[in-house]
Amino acid sequence: MKKHNFSAGPCILPQEVFQKASEAVLNFNNDHLSILEISHRSKPFVDVMEKARSLALELLGLEGKGYKALFLQGGASMQFLMTAYNLLENKAAYLNTGTWSDKAIKEAKLFGELVEVASSKDKNFTYIPKGYNIPTDADYFHCTSNNTIFGTQIKHFPETEVPMVCDMSSDIFSRQLDFSKFDLIYAGAQKNMGPAGTTLVVVKEEILGKVSRTIPSMLDYKVHLGKDSMFNTPAVFPVYVSMLTLEWLKNFGGIAAIEKINEQKSTLLYNEVDRNPLFAGVVATEDRSHMNTTFTLTNDSLSETFDAMCKEAGINGLNGHRSVGGYRASMYNALPVESVQVLVAVMQALEKKA
Amino acid sequence: MKKHNFSAGPCILPQEVFQKASEAVLNFNNDHLSILEISHRSKPFVDVMEKARSLALELLGLEGKGYKALFLQGGASMQFLMTAYNLLENKAAYLNTGTWSDKAIKEAKLFGELVEVASSKDKNFTYIPKGYNIPTDADYFHCTSNNTIFGTQIKHFPETEVPMVCDMSSDIFSRQLDFSKFDLIYAGAQKNMGPAGTTLVVVKEEILGKVSRTIPSMLDYKVHLGKDSMFNTPAVFPVYVSMLTLEWLKNFGGIAAIEKINEQKSTLLYNEVDRNPLFAGVVATEDRSHMNTTFTLTNDSLSETFDAMCKEAGINGLNGHRSVGGYRASMYNALPVESVQVLVAVMQALEKKA
Repeated sequence: MKKHNFSAGPCILPQEVFQKASEAVLNFNNDHLSILEISHRSKPFVDVMEKARSLALELLGLEGKGYKALFLQGGASMQFLMTAYNLLENKAAYLNTGTWSDKAIKEAKLFGELVEVASSKDKNFTYIPKGYNIPTDADYFHCTSNNTIFGTQIKHFPETEVPMVCDMSSDIFSRQLDFSKFDLIYAGAQKNMGPAGTTLVVVKEEILGKVSRTIPSMLDYKVHLGKDSMFNTPAVFPVYVSMLTLEWLKNFGGIAAIEKINEQKSTLLYNEVDRNPLFAGVVATEDRSHMNTTFTLTNDSLSETFDAMCKEAGINGLNGHRSVGGYRASMYNALPVESVQVLVAVMQALEKKA
Repeated sequence: MKKHNFSAGPCILPQEVFQKASEAVLNFNNDHLSILEISHRSKPFVDVMEKARSLALELLGLEGKGYKALFLQGGASMQFLMTAYNLLENKAAYLNTGTWSDKAIKEAKLFGELVEVASSKDKNFTYIPKGYNIPTDADYFHCTSNNTIFGTQIKHFPETEVPMVCDMSSDIFSRQLDFSKFDLIYAGAQKNMGPAGTTLVVVKEEILGKVSRTIPSMLDYKVHLGKDSMFNTPAVFPVYVSMLTLEWLKNFGGIAAIEKINEQKSTLLYNEVDRNPLFAGVVATEDRSHMNTTFTLTNDSLSETFDAMCKEAGINGLNGHRSVGGYRASMYNALPVESVQVLVAVMQALEKKA
């Protein structure tokens, strides 16, 4: 039975990526060895790493602009720490738009003064703060582009003179932006880029090397850059699958092409949430995420019926984050429009039944 | 053509593990979803993580002895840093037996006073120092059980009152030891345990919480323990394949059973290195590693012929580490005796030919 996978991450990847990845576990590069048993220093894998790094820059339109890409371990959570370790000398400015920003702030506080320029905590992170000021003497400004848990997304990034750092874990490669506005972008792979276990870091080299502390090797971007993202054994398979996914996106037409599909999917679902009296959106309309749609039932007593109908239709991963409840439909790049159509059909069927 | 994979790591894993892993990339747990697209909080994956953690303790004979197992990211290189961050308050004692110890020492120096109790650097790490003293006021003693690059292995661990920390990346699960002598064991997965991308940490809980510094969340063992190794998204696939490999080892008869095979393999190869006048071992006989046999040709002009014969026989990954040259046959748990027999036959054929 066909599954419709709305998981918030790790999440659906293109079927052809699963196919190629599965084959490579048995026979990679037609060398009759598994991708899991080859040296990370072998030419076939070095080629994979280099291709993944250059595809990331190419898709973001950042080639030849002073940026480099790294595939590190530890997820965005490790980046909360590494960004501060590498960039925070005196003071940093953070925008607080939810759980992930909150965690990033907590880790950065160990390294210097933190200025929370704005927060939407007052309304349980259901909107994106606007019109805040970023201190011009901050070492950098940090924000989270998309909030998986609450379903909000920054549509307009602030103008600022200070380096801009952005956690794009849950919407990177999903929409066109002027990525050159950012000085450091990081993203755990497990949404639009690949499986869990690797993290993309795209950094403008000129912002590094400015803090006075000694940075441990594994936390030092310059160390990783100096070794072309091979300072130590990388997460070979997650990097390989990320490369396959980036390749798939390039063949698809890149970010411009996938953005159209993503808009189609989110329009379809938000329209139904707004139209159907049994459902209600959770967040401010203008800040709605195109990746994660959060919604609730207006009548809680229907939840068992709705859950059963979803299951019957092959819908997976629709439960809201354990910290907020309700429903959440994550519609990452690889989710077909058809899956959203199936979900909308179930929502309409519930309305008829109720 | 059958390959004989002597790679130093990432390295060969059991064929049945590759088979199951390949299947799980398409259909995990018969849920018609890829292991790469399911939530790490879903029951099927939580079960995988818990099984991997308990199998690790069971195979090491450490169940019910105050130890817990974690599967973290970042490799042994991240553990060089984390062990010091979590345990080093004033002074730590390190045994220097090669590149990896050296790197561990370098990172730990950022956190306190380092005492190098002994080093074999004087003879390019071709032996294991003995008879050294470990200061009784050290916060811990750190050693590397097996040195992949040089091909040495500690056969007798020192007696000490201070907590013992050991990097067992390249020989964990390969030989019987009284693992309860150690207070913290870490090991990158990519030798005897699984693919690159996850790192096993086995820690006696009572040694934690004794340093006065604030530890960043991602580097704090107590944080990871408090979340059952799920503080953030783990490297799902590498942990799954590690679980499969540990399961395979358990079914094989555990460490006692694999140790016999490992001894058989290393005896076979060292005997040939010693017997065959065309080859010479590199390290002190009593310190020879059962995992990595390093050797050289006594006549360099034969190297092209030998390399070609190896290739012809399907032998892969026999080149020595780029920092030392020569040859290195890594014979981890999953390497069949047959592969060593093939290598020995090639060495004998070279002798006849020369």
